[in-house]
Amino acid sequence: MKYYAKPLNRLINELSKLPGIGGKTAQRLAFHILSMDEKEALALADSIKDAKTSMRYCSICGNLTDVDPCVICSDDSRDKSLICVVESPADVVAMEKIREYRGYYHVLHGAISPMDGVGPEDINLKSLITRLHDDEVRELIIATNPNIEGEATAMYIARLIKPSGIKVSRIAHGIPVGGDLEYADEVTLLKAIEGRREL
Amino acid sequence: MKYYAKPLNRLINELSKLPGIGGKTAQRLAFHILSMDEKEALALADSIKDAKTSMRYCSICGNLTDVDPCVICSDDSRDKSLICVVESPADVVAMEKIREYRGYYHVLHGAISPMDGVGPEDINLKSLITRLHDDEVRELIIATNPNIEGEATAMYIARLIKPSGIKVSRIAHGIPVGGDLEYADEVTLLKAIEGRREL
Repeated sequence: MKYYAKPLNRLINELSKLPGIGGKTAQRLAFHILSMDEKEALALADSIKDAKTSMRYCSICGNLTDVDPCVICSDDSRDKSLICVVESPADVVAMEKIREYRGYYHVLHGAISPMDGVGPEDINLKSLITRLHDDEVRELIIATNPNIEGEATAMYIARLIKPSGIKVSRIAHGIPVGGDLEYADEVTLLKAIEGRREL
Repeated sequence: MKYYAKPLNRLINELSKLPGIGGKTAQRLAFHILSMDEKEALALADSIKDAKTSMRYCSICGNLTDVDPCVICSDDSRDKSLICVVESPADVVAMEKIREYRGYYHVLHGAISPMDGVGPEDINLKSLITRLHDDEVRELIIATNPNIEGEATAMYIARLIKPSGIKVSRIAHGIPVGGDLEYADEVTLLKAIEGRREL
């Protein structure tokens, strides 16, 4: 006995491929989708199709975009001397949300991870070097994640770029604002002390 | 500054309408969908469209199905003397998974809830009465949820059906198997004692 009709089974199957969506959640979502208005459900299906077909990577920075170059790369009012290097398009969104950074971005689409067989040539690094030749860039802010892969990538890029005279900086690690010293792990606390600033 | 390109924004928006999917999860899912193979992403979109257009409610039991009557209602090997009344199609799946119950089902699509303005005429009850006239049904097992609405619905159906001579039973409430007596709430424990059986 199969528990679901074929189309429902297929929907549950497809939904459960998404990250963080297990079998139970996929079933709940599927039943919800079937209880939605036809218009709403088709809007969801269309938005997936539309996003997947119209979104591509910016040929300059590698960010996700529907126009090439992306809106950030084609914004001339930004600070041309700054490029912030991040691992993923989601990181660009996180940076933009602070509404303070006015430079450009470069999305690596990953981080160097020899353990997983990801070398420097497997991430979007080559085009960054090209950008540094062409542009009036003076500083590269490396905002890869504060884990082993992110740090390795930051070190690699720093060593690669520094000889060219461009300043390479790394975002600060330390206690998050609103965080509690008592609950900070040792490495974070060590980074916070190392990165202390005179008041 | 908008943080997302329009198609991405629309996708995040549609995903965040799903139950249990907040803004952050919707963003994560959207970025994941964009990083998927085109084939996979379109398969997801298609499965939504296909399920929504091909699934309907069985004209006999009210369960979700792609054929009418549904596979359960058209299965002649089942026990015609039993109908299990449940609130939703998901409950049918839960019942079927025990692989023990061999009767038919009736899906109410809700429960009586005067507080929310849901009366007996707002749930799929009328067709149940019709089924009882036609069929060789001898017992109605009421498996609505063990909450106020489910209990009220069970009581209502019991009062409605009993005069016709059909046996009406309610699934047992008690300590779940593998559960801990220490952590059971008072009402559950009370139900467990009330429903005790001689060994």
